[in-house]
Amino acid sequence: MFIKDIKVMDCTVRDGGLMNNWQFSDEFVRGVYAACLEAGIDYMEIGYLSSEKAFDPAVVGPWKFCKQKDLQRIVGKNETPLKLSAMADIGRIDHDDIPPKSESVLDMIRVACYVHQMDKAIDLAHHCMDKGYEVSINLMAISKVNEVEQDEALCDVGQSRVPIFYAVDSFGSMYVESIQHLVRKYMKALPGKKIGIHAHNNMQLAVSNTITGLIEGCTMLDATLLGLGRGAGNCPTEVLIAFLKNPKYRLLPLFQVIQDHIYPMQKTIHWGYHIPYLVTGALNEHPRKAMDWMESEQKDDFVTFMRKMHDNELLE
Amino acid sequence: MFIKDIKVMDCTVRDGGLMNNWQFSDEFVRGVYAACLEAGIDYMEIGYLSSEKAFDPAVVGPWKFCKQKDLQRIVGKNETPLKLSAMADIGRIDHDDIPPKSESVLDMIRVACYVHQMDKAIDLAHHCMDKGYEVSINLMAISKVNEVEQDEALCDVGQSRVPIFYAVDSFGSMYVESIQHLVRKYMKALPGKKIGIHAHNNMQLAVSNTITGLIEGCTMLDATLLGLGRGAGNCPTEVLIAFLKNPKYRLLPLFQVIQDHIYPMQKTIHWGYHIPYLVTGALNEHPRKAMDWMESEQKDDFVTFMRKMHDNELLE
Repeated sequence: MFIKDIKVMDCTVRDGGLMNNWQFSDEFVRGVYAACLEAGIDYMEIGYLSSEKAFDPAVVGPWKFCKQKDLQRIVGKNETPLKLSAMADIGRIDHDDIPPKSESVLDMIRVACYVHQMDKAIDLAHHCMDKGYEVSINLMAISKVNEVEQDEALCDVGQSRVPIFYAVDSFGSMYVESIQHLVRKYMKALPGKKIGIHAHNNMQLAVSNTITGLIEGCTMLDATLLGLGRGAGNCPTEVLIAFLKNPKYRLLPLFQVIQDHIYPMQKTIHWGYHIPYLVTGALNEHPRKAMDWMESEQKDDFVTFMRKMHDNELLE
Repeated sequence: MFIKDIKVMDCTVRDGGLMNNWQFSDEFVRGVYAACLEAGIDYMEIGYLSSEKAFDPAVVGPWKFCKQKDLQRIVGKNETPLKLSAMADIGRIDHDDIPPKSESVLDMIRVACYVHQMDKAIDLAHHCMDKGYEVSINLMAISKVNEVEQDEALCDVGQSRVPIFYAVDSFGSMYVESIQHLVRKYMKALPGKKIGIHAHNNMQLAVSNTITGLIEGCTMLDATLLGLGRGAGNCPTEVLIAFLKNPKYRLLPLFQVIQDHIYPMQKTIHWGYHIPYLVTGALNEHPRKAMDWMESEQKDDFVTFMRKMHDNELLE
């Protein structure tokens, strides 16, 4: 499937960091960076931009903050075609924490928000644009948002200057028809803006939902190496690139970094398809309880997990 | 998604047996049978019907032959709503090896063939129908068959008495648009017949392709527990049932047998998404070379595997 304007964003370090508190070695991050560069990936999301007031640096690693000194230790001045992105969560960062683009190796800031935070997200997004960055808004957990709230948020985004808006299936609960509905709605409400898609794999539909997004007009596609990401993980970068068969991308560098760095992590980090993640996805719930379960001694007792979720014992 | 006439066929023992030469313990097969029954699954495919001349019983287990004594040891007379199926490969069985339905606990025989074997498949299918069984034809490796041959095969099936025909993505190389094309073609060419779908997960699209088949009109859906099947495996039964939300099915018995019997097998059998299977799927090749690679010392050297496949060193 050849689509000219397609951009692939590898979020391995950012989304994968949700599974290990961003405690990646420099060698790991450097390996992902080099592989993305060699593979012709368009964007690499290297972490979050966060205030040090929001998180304890003794607990979370450097990619939760993306300080310039940490970034430059990996990428130097990044004088390459590979653009670097960081995500900013509403409420976890102050405007003043964001350096002007001229003092930063980051190219893009993606503002993540829940629907009730849309006004703050647009405000922060404009602030980042004014500082010189490419900017998107990623509206999370959309599968729990009712139609009226969705429409209001889309109206606000439509009136903003923000040029890119993401469909995000945070809970991995959507499938071909719900993705079609969502992306068509976004395309219709936001003429002239680019639409992106970020999928999770709870129902083993992350690749398919990404392809469906693409068919419906999404041109910014999120993926992670071997699907490394929160809970059931994401659309794997290598599957997406193998599927696209676009001449600007190369598969072998991705396989190399997977076998050197990502695959061995499966021994210690339990991302990817597991029954507890299927349960939260099928129930359209946040994966948090499944992640807790996967960290517990009972992790392979799927029946008890399902019973507890079903009886609301584990719901918030 | 509620569709009244939907039938789910669990092929765990039959397709999974391709990974261990059908060397399942009786306890395992009994566990799968009990779970399918309790979960309300419509059909369980318990193995292959094969001639003992075709395979060495010292190498392959009883579920490659499905002799009545072996079946009855597990299911007795199977006086339950769960129907039992076995697959018959063209060239691996003689007509006389198939007992009349009155002497068999099997309800269905699915005749698997390649396109050049279609006349033989129709002949065997009619023979099985005349002996009293429900019968389908499963045309394998369709992604390698050119349109002219496809059309001729469909014409022959259309003129036959065989009531069920399967879309089979043997190599796991298809996605939403190719599945749509194929199922629409089958539906149009075979009015009045039921269409089924059997998907493989090389590109992580088995669940999605099964759902696409369903949306396009397939009413016979193949799946295996935890996706246990050849190479990258299949659409997982538990994901399909969780997705369908059909009141006739129950998830918990499936989770129970997965945690008791299937999940522990992952330690010794490497089915499911692995990079070598992605490579053969993306190249639209038979998974055999990837399966051999996964059995070798080099199994985690994905780069070398890709290079060898790309240079045709491993192609037949």
